[in-house]
Amino acid sequence: MSDTLSINSERLWTRLMDMARYGALPGGGNNRQALTDEDKAGREQFMAWCREIGCEVRLDAIGNIFARRAGSDNTLPPVITGSHLDTQPSGGKFDGIYGVLGGLEVLHTLHDQNVKTVHPLEVVVWTNEEGCRFDTAMMGSAVWSGAMSLDSAYALTDRDHLSVKSELERIDHLGEHSATAGAIHAALELHIEQGPVLEAEGETIGIVTGVQHMSRHRIVVFGQEAHAGPTPMELRKDPVMALARMLPPLYEIAERHAPDGRITFGYINAEPGSSNTVPGRLEITIDIRHPQAAQYEQMLEEYNKAVRDACDQLELDVQMSCFWEAPGITFDARCIEAVRSSARGHGYTTREMCSGAGHDSCNVHTVAPTSMIFIPCEGGLSHNEAENVLPEDAAAGANILLGAILELAGVAGEA
Amino acid sequence: MSDTLSINSERLWTRLMDMARYGALPGGGNNRQALTDEDKAGREQFMAWCREIGCEVRLDAIGNIFARRAGSDNTLPPVITGSHLDTQPSGGKFDGIYGVLGGLEVLHTLHDQNVKTVHPLEVVVWTNEEGCRFDTAMMGSAVWSGAMSLDSAYALTDRDHLSVKSELERIDHLGEHSATAGAIHAALELHIEQGPVLEAEGETIGIVTGVQHMSRHRIVVFGQEAHAGPTPMELRKDPVMALARMLPPLYEIAERHAPDGRITFGYINAEPGSSNTVPGRLEITIDIRHPQAAQYEQMLEEYNKAVRDACDQLELDVQMSCFWEAPGITFDARCIEAVRSSARGHGYTTREMCSGAGHDSCNVHTVAPTSMIFIPCEGGLSHNEAENVLPEDAAAGANILLGAILELAGVAGEA
Repeated sequence: MSDTLSINSERLWTRLMDMARYGALPGGGNNRQALTDEDKAGREQFMAWCREIGCEVRLDAIGNIFARRAGSDNTLPPVITGSHLDTQPSGGKFDGIYGVLGGLEVLHTLHDQNVKTVHPLEVVVWTNEEGCRFDTAMMGSAVWSGAMSLDSAYALTDRDHLSVKSELERIDHLGEHSATAGAIHAALELHIEQGPVLEAEGETIGIVTGVQHMSRHRIVVFGQEAHAGPTPMELRKDPVMALARMLPPLYEIAERHAPDGRITFGYINAEPGSSNTVPGRLEITIDIRHPQAAQYEQMLEEYNKAVRDACDQLELDVQMSCFWEAPGITFDARCIEAVRSSARGHGYTTREMCSGAGHDSCNVHTVAPTSMIFIPCEGGLSHNEAENVLPEDAAAGANILLGAILELAGVAGEA
Repeated sequence: MSDTLSINSERLWTRLMDMARYGALPGGGNNRQALTDEDKAGREQFMAWCREIGCEVRLDAIGNIFARRAGSDNTLPPVITGSHLDTQPSGGKFDGIYGVLGGLEVLHTLHDQNVKTVHPLEVVVWTNEEGCRFDTAMMGSAVWSGAMSLDSAYALTDRDHLSVKSELERIDHLGEHSATAGAIHAALELHIEQGPVLEAEGETIGIVTGVQHMSRHRIVVFGQEAHAGPTPMELRKDPVMALARMLPPLYEIAERHAPDGRITFGYINAEPGSSNTVPGRLEITIDIRHPQAAQYEQMLEEYNKAVRDACDQLELDVQMSCFWEAPGITFDARCIEAVRSSARGHGYTTREMCSGAGHDSCNVHTVAPTSMIFIPCEGGLSHNEAENVLPEDAAAGANILLGAILELAGVAGEA
């Protein structure tokens, strides 16, 4: 039965557009930062929709919302799905929201069709995923999974020195339930890709098998300021010469570890920055990612060697430091298989892929079997008012979610 | 006789140290910016020293000082020598000052030895060479040589909106003589190298044959901002990839045109400058120099090709513009030969070289046969409180100047 059920794509799209009225921006995007009046309005709209179809809605101590649809055996742990409703200051209509309303649409479809699952189902809204107003991304899921203490989350403040706790109280969303994960049967998160791969390859569904290993590094190369005119090339201590020697081998690292190896130079700055002075100091950042631990580790080694070789050859001092690292994640095989099987049933084109960005699922996966589903987004854009998806892709993703949930939760009355 | 005369090196050094008391800084350097009270004091000290040895001192309408020692035939055009007394805000004791006091020392030696030249001699102090208080470098020599109008020089203002003209009046150095070059027999400028070549090669005297051709260019490469995680390497429009492709061939241009070709990347900046975002825009400046016109032109062609090739291969848009260019200068053969011959007579080690920086001589050369003499400076440093020279090198340079002046001006009574 599960492979024939389909969600109501018009209702899903209408709700996406309805949610986008809270904190709407003139450019078509949204400013619905965590725990603002706009966020409160969006969250309450979501809760109202859930109650309309008979869900029991509860808030926990960090403001995470759980909308529960009973199963046939409510002593069993729930299958949960969800994402976040908060946005960046100039965010879009889909990042996070799509996962929440896609989950709601699944429950609504089951309600319409009068289908009961064996395990209860819960749609979750995680508080403050974006981390832009209160500077910790994925905050609600971090507290719930035990990665962050409730008190440290409460103590986070925005630019106006308002705390998470006082803002939760102000909007009346500080719940009485413990912000601690109980037993979870399985967790699924539906999300826009936030990258260009699905669109470029013409595929509808990304079966997300994990999250990349990633780290960010800062390199400072020290040279000696010198006049561009009288100083011969061979007497210079020019950090840009080191850059010329390290950039090609660094990009080759990504080529050697293609197609999944990624290397990004986001920040490059030479000082003092005068056009007729050889710089005395060059600072760059390097972001290195790969889904496979072994290849990722090898990339790090090769990166170290490429930078040291370039600076050694020129006898320039260099400082290298890693200022951020997140270990990769391999999602749960059973959850991934449920998504795969649901996609087969619906006949959508798929691609297995690793997430390049962090999601609430990174926290959830530490306490529950977890995986994710991606749909294409226009030009790979997100965190941008122009963020966009095709209505048919939005429907496809929710259909996959529906099938996977039914497979994981079981349908009451089926064998 | 000319090859046996030597200057008084102690007196020269004492005067350099005496001049450094006007606008002295705690770090050993000087702040004697043009037309300040400190500059006035330094200029008046110079004029007093000149009058002590019987020179006639005159000021022109832009404040250039000419101290004249009569020749045996005063209908002949003078041989002039000099430089500037103004400094950068944290400048040194030698840049400019050495050329002025070296010239004075030559006149003082001739006075002591009772030597009369055929042509009259003049030591010149050019007003506002540094261009830091009033934003036009080599201002006094530019007006005098006709490269800049007197009115535009008068109208220049400092940060406090004080004009060159009002400051000349305030310090009472606006002279009655026309700021226009008359007939000049020859012009010589003694200067610190402001580069590391003489020191590195262990040579005492730089015979300066000209000034490099030079230009400064701005390149903006346009890419597309993208998330460092989800965006595969082959789908990126990454301007840093273009940088990786253009830097090695650009440095190779300098190698191909070694030892005199120079290429400098003084400014490099990637935007938006976030460590996990592929930059959407990269801006760099490139300073290109070579003493020979043909090689310089070839470097420009090669530079254009290297940048275009890199961006074309990656299909990235690029804007290239030249924002400053100064044609090279070849100094006067007779003046150069006089310096060469004087150096041979004194037995100093020499090196023929091109100036990499601009000097008042660049203006003077447009109206008079001109050349320059360089001495080593410690570590090639200038525009820095730590600027330093060895007293024996200072003496050597002044001796070379003395010999060259005697050769160019002729000694009265000699055949």
